[in-house]
Amino acid sequence: MPRYRITIEYDGRGFVGWQRQKNGLGVQQALEEAVLGFSGEEVTVFGAGRTDSGVHAAAQVAHFDLNSEPRADTVRDAVNFHVKPHPVSVLMARVAEDGFDARLSATSRSYRYLIVNRRAPLTFGRGLMWRVAVALDAAAMNEAAKVLLGRHDFTTFRAVKCQAISPVKTLDRLEVARDGEAITITARARSFMHHQVRNMVGTLKLVGEGKWTTADVRSALHAKDRAKGGPTAPACGLYLSRVDY
Amino acid sequence: MPRYRITIEYDGRGFVGWQRQKNGLGVQQALEEAVLGFSGEEVTVFGAGRTDSGVHAAAQVAHFDLNSEPRADTVRDAVNFHVKPHPVSVLMARVAEDGFDARLSATSRSYRYLIVNRRAPLTFGRGLMWRVAVALDAAAMNEAAKVLLGRHDFTTFRAVKCQAISPVKTLDRLEVARDGEAITITARARSFMHHQVRNMVGTLKLVGEGKWTTADVRSALHAKDRAKGGPTAPACGLYLSRVDY
Repeated sequence: MPRYRITIEYDGRGFVGWQRQKNGLGVQQALEEAVLGFSGEEVTVFGAGRTDSGVHAAAQVAHFDLNSEPRADTVRDAVNFHVKPHPVSVLMARVAEDGFDARLSATSRSYRYLIVNRRAPLTFGRGLMWRVAVALDAAAMNEAAKVLLGRHDFTTFRAVKCQAISPVKTLDRLEVARDGEAITITARARSFMHHQVRNMVGTLKLVGEGKWTTADVRSALHAKDRAKGGPTAPACGLYLSRVDY
Repeated sequence: MPRYRITIEYDGRGFVGWQRQKNGLGVQQALEEAVLGFSGEEVTVFGAGRTDSGVHAAAQVAHFDLNSEPRADTVRDAVNFHVKPHPVSVLMARVAEDGFDARLSATSRSYRYLIVNRRAPLTFGRGLMWRVAVALDAAAMNEAAKVLLGRHDFTTFRAVKCQAISPVKTLDRLEVARDGEAITITARARSFMHHQVRNMVGTLKLVGEGKWTTADVRSALHAKDRAKGGPTAPACGLYLSRVDY
């Protein structure tokens, strides 16, 4: 019974998120139905990251088991054929190594958050990035981001409904870089809590517009109180961009 | 009676193209209605480039005249307010210098064409780039592109229904560059004929997949016969990216 490992890209608009849910289509369900469509097998597709509604993936990783043993390239093409017309695409498929689990074996997850910093509304970027009209100081945001690096209790940046057992996480990377009107925030950790990246981005935005200082970010972190953090940045700018094993 | 010069971005999907037409909404019409909405004045908005249906603009330039004299920033914000919910956005507005005409004063137009060279279907890139599954040799495409530089009779790359008076144009830039799976083709000329960029891209794609050589492109150009050129690349990958004056 081979296990397949797939790398997936998707446009989060129109999905209720990664997970199968009753109130709409999850990416997971779209993939499970595509696998059923070509193999006749009912599988569960396990993903490395449970992205929220409206959040995109440039390289989500998932696995599933089949009784049949199609070639990995066939799996890639057949899932892509059957998953149409949903905006989900299998970039790569391969037979997983023994013991591989997309969620449990992951050693780090990387997200990127795209801000377009301009006054003009978005056109082709609608739903794919966060437009912030007020001028942001990306260098100040990048400085403040350093406060969050390392091992901390991230309760301040955790959704109230988050089900993680511990709020202590280690943030390995948090960088803010500007290229013209585009500001990209890159975050990497073994794992993140619910809304953690979006809550950190919403807080760094306060620094970018000069309302908060680096010291304010430090105080908010130490308060371990979600009410002391900045607002949650919208889902549309967030991409699960990489999973390492 | 001030003349306003605006720089516009738009998502070409859902428009019949730049020009006002009877069979659907043109970007021009959407802008004219937005100007009417905030100023009460019926104007004609003249654009530098008449983009086709499905073709996007990152920086189209246009002008129009008003009897009233609002500040340029007010024009930008008011047009953006009224042009919602269409995916059109005024990036910049200013009072035009004397004698300025968006179309007639333009000294060059630049287009970029975006190819995603991969087997997997597109997700968030749908309608915004051309997915080409077969591996393309971008370096070979870039070499072949040089054949088209300079002053030539571009009949081979001109839509049959093109109304330009002369097929002789001077192509100042045509470059093909790869960055991972993304291939960007940049073209610049004083003016282009109908479908010229898309026909050149469709021809260079033949070179990229090894079906044509640089010599074949040269022969096609010299044939001055549309039937000897490559197919027309789809509209979705094309962006009017810059207009110089």
